[in-house]
This record gives sequence, structure tokens and C-alpha cells, in this order.
Amino acid sequence: MSLSQIKVIAFDADDTLWVNETFFRKAEEEFCILLEAYMPKEEANTLLFDIEMKNLPLYGYGIKPFTLSLIEAAITISKGNLETELIQKLIEKGKQMLLEPVELIDGIDRTLNELSKKYRLVMATKGDLLDQERKLIKSGLEKYFHHIEIVSDKTEKQYRKLIRHLDITEQEFLMVGNSLKSDVIPVLNIGAHAFHIPFHTTWVHEMVDQEVCHPNFKSFTQASELLTIL
Amino acid sequence: MSLSQIKVIAFDADDTLWVNETFFRKAEEEFCILLEAYMPKEEANTLLFDIEMKNLPLYGYGIKPFTLSLIEAAITISKGNLETELIQKLIEKGKQMLLEPVELIDGIDRTLNELSKKYRLVMATKGDLLDQERKLIKSGLEKYFHHIEIVSDKTEKQYRKLIRHLDITEQEFLMVGNSLKSDVIPVLNIGAHAFHIPFHTTWVHEMVDQEVCHPNFKSFTQASELLTIL
Repeated sequence: MSLSQIKVIAFDADDTLWVNETFFRKAEEEFCILLEAYMPKEEANTLLFDIEMKNLPLYGYGIKPFTLSLIEAAITISKGNLETELIQKLIEKGKQMLLEPVELIDGIDRTLNELSKKYRLVMATKGDLLDQERKLIKSGLEKYFHHIEIVSDKTEKQYRKLIRHLDITEQEFLMVGNSLKSDVIPVLNIGAHAFHIPFHTTWVHEMVDQEVCHPNFKSFTQASELLTIL
Repeated sequence: MSLSQIKVIAFDADDTLWVNETFFRKAEEEFCILLEAYMPKEEANTLLFDIEMKNLPLYGYGIKPFTLSLIEAAITISKGNLETELIQKLIEKGKQMLLEPVELIDGIDRTLNELSKKYRLVMATKGDLLDQERKLIKSGLEKYFHHIEIVSDKTEKQYRKLIRHLDITEQEFLMVGNSLKSDVIPVLNIGAHAFHIPFHTTWVHEMVDQEVCHPNFKSFTQASELLTIL
């Protein structure tokens, strides 16, 4: 691996720069408690996940799709016999998630500060632009990034497009993120570099049952470890 | 106005490349009919618009925010006394809007085809990325565009960022769109060029009570008229 070629480092946002998955897990738990009168919690959680997956190609990622899926799941779970008040609560839950304060991942500020002196940094996320912009501004990390790249899904095709758009070659691109499925595997497949920094919680949809072993790949436990080799 | 300087032409998407506002107007009408038992149609329409405006800073633009506002408005209109079935209908309505076929604006294909031979064309929209990408692919217009620029709102600040990102000067940028408020006024204010092609329906939120008179501005009735001067 020749790290000296790297010109642009793209950072995933959710659970790489700031905590995110934790809020979704918490919301799912609250949802299952709200619906407990209709269905056992674990079963409700599975049903919600199934509805999210069914809606994913149409809705995409983010809090607004999640809120719509919560409402749809609640209607299904209650067999169409739901108090309106509960739906209002789910809408409020979604709004509250959009306003959640930003909690930075340990050591990320210092790491970005150092890296931004040597590389062009971009934020690459498949979330929703307005929401990610808001989090970036709240996070205080905006000053380190050249710009935000929003992709509708993190596939090989989308990464190729991103790299073309950045006007660099695959060998000059490094992706850093918490998801093997989204931030690592498609990036390695197109000949670019990918570093993995796992977050303690991974969404079932992002899980892969795969060991990665590749010359362009490294795994770290903390963001600040990037500074030892970059 | 020196059009010879122009390097990049950015096209707004909804109601500039394809019909959009018409679908929202139709959905609003259907919504008011569904809720007629609770509130007169005109009053319900006003209440829905107020809820959309209240939610806009948090939700942003697009069909998913619109669907969430439909549900919230329905709950408010019914005073929390709503059949779950009606909420299911609103969710389905939103999904149906996301799947609506793309209807091109007259003459746009030929116009883009010609312009793409002389200029770098980008699509600049404040809608939601997944939805706009889907429409671009369905439209068959993708081949004419260098890439999509998604902005969270079309303000002077966002246009400056976009122009910096395109690596050109203000004088080299031309925006073409149907909204004076979003596609024309902020663009002229930063010293770039803006052409207006009105669509027959304008969302109340996009209306401005202003006559535009500026050396960098022109108004057209049809897309193909652009070819007479560009």
C-alpha cells in the first residue's frame, strides 16, 4: 500500500464523525414500548425492520424515512386500530431526532485538524443533505472539510462517480468509515484505499459477515490512530 | 451582458426539466377532499400550508417532508380523532408520488442536447437526492449533465459555494429555472447570470412580488428559446 499517493480523504459522517446509531436504537426501543399493548417488543422490532427494508429503495436513508416507517409499522402492528395520539408522538419523536445535539466521536476533532493540513478532506455520506449539513455545522468540524459529497447509496458505481467528480484517480482516494459494507468493501473493489474504524453499534442492514484482508485496507480502534500513519 | 463568458449552465430540476408542482397541487386537492368531513376544503388547504412552512426549516424540501406534513395536518384537522385508514392512505399517496412517471417540459431534451455540446451542464436542485436521481434517470436526460448539485436551500451563500465548487467565477455561471425566488434573484445578487422560464403553476412559498430588471437577466416562455441566444 502506497499511502504517499493519497490526495483526498473522504470521511463517512454518522458514527465516524459523530454518534448516530445510538439514537436510532433508542428510538426503536421507545417505539416497541409504545406498541407493547399490541405486540411483544421483539416481534415489533422485527416488523419495524422489515418495513424499513421494504421502504429503503423508495425512501432512502435518514430520519424522515425512519419516521414514515415508524408510522407505517405502528399502523400494521395495531391492525389499523391505533389512537391518533400515538402517531402524533411518532412524528414528534422524528422531529426530536432531527434536533438532537451532536456528540463527537473521541479524538475526531484533533485528527481532522492535523489531516486537513496535509490532505483535501471531504465528508461523504448517504444521509439526507439538510440533516447532515445541520450536524456538520453544529459539530464545529465544518472548517476541516473542503465540501460535502452526498451519495444516494455507497455502491462501487457511486464511488467511481465521486472520484471522477473529485478529479483524482482511485489510488489517490482514501475512504474512512465505520461500515465495512458501505465504506470499505465497494471502495477496495474499485482499487481505492479504505480504513475502517468500527463504532460499538452497527445497524443490522450494515452488517457483513466477512473478514477483510486487502493491501489497501487497515482497521483502527480510534480515529487518532490515523495520525500514526497518515 | 456578456454571454460569451459562460462556462457552466445549471438547470433547476422540478418544473424546469420536468413537471412537478402539478403533482403536489393534485395531492393537496385530494387531501382536502379526504378531510372534508372535518373542515372546509379551503381552510384545510391553508392549515396544511402553514404546517408545511413551520416544518420547512427542519424537514427541508421534497415528497417525504410533504407526506409527514400531510399526516400532521390530518391529525390537527381531525382534532386527533382520525381513522388509521386515512393515515395509511396518506402514506400510500406519498409513495405513489415518489413513483410518478416523469413528464418532460416541452422542448427540454433538444435544448439540453444542443447546449451540452457547448457548455458544461449541471443539474442544481434543492430536492432530495435519491428522488431527484431517480427522476433524472427516468427522464433520459442524464447523459446531458456533468453531475447533480444538491443544495439544501437556494440562497446566495449556497450559490457562492456551488460556484466555488465548480471552480469557475460568478461571471462564468448561468442558472436556468422556473422560480424567481430560488433560481434568479440570489444568482443575480452574487453577480452571476440567471434566465427565467416560468412554469404555469408556482408554489405559494416560491412566489415573489417583484419585477426583475437586470443586465444579467432574461425571461423566456419556452426552453427551446434558449438556443436562439446561447
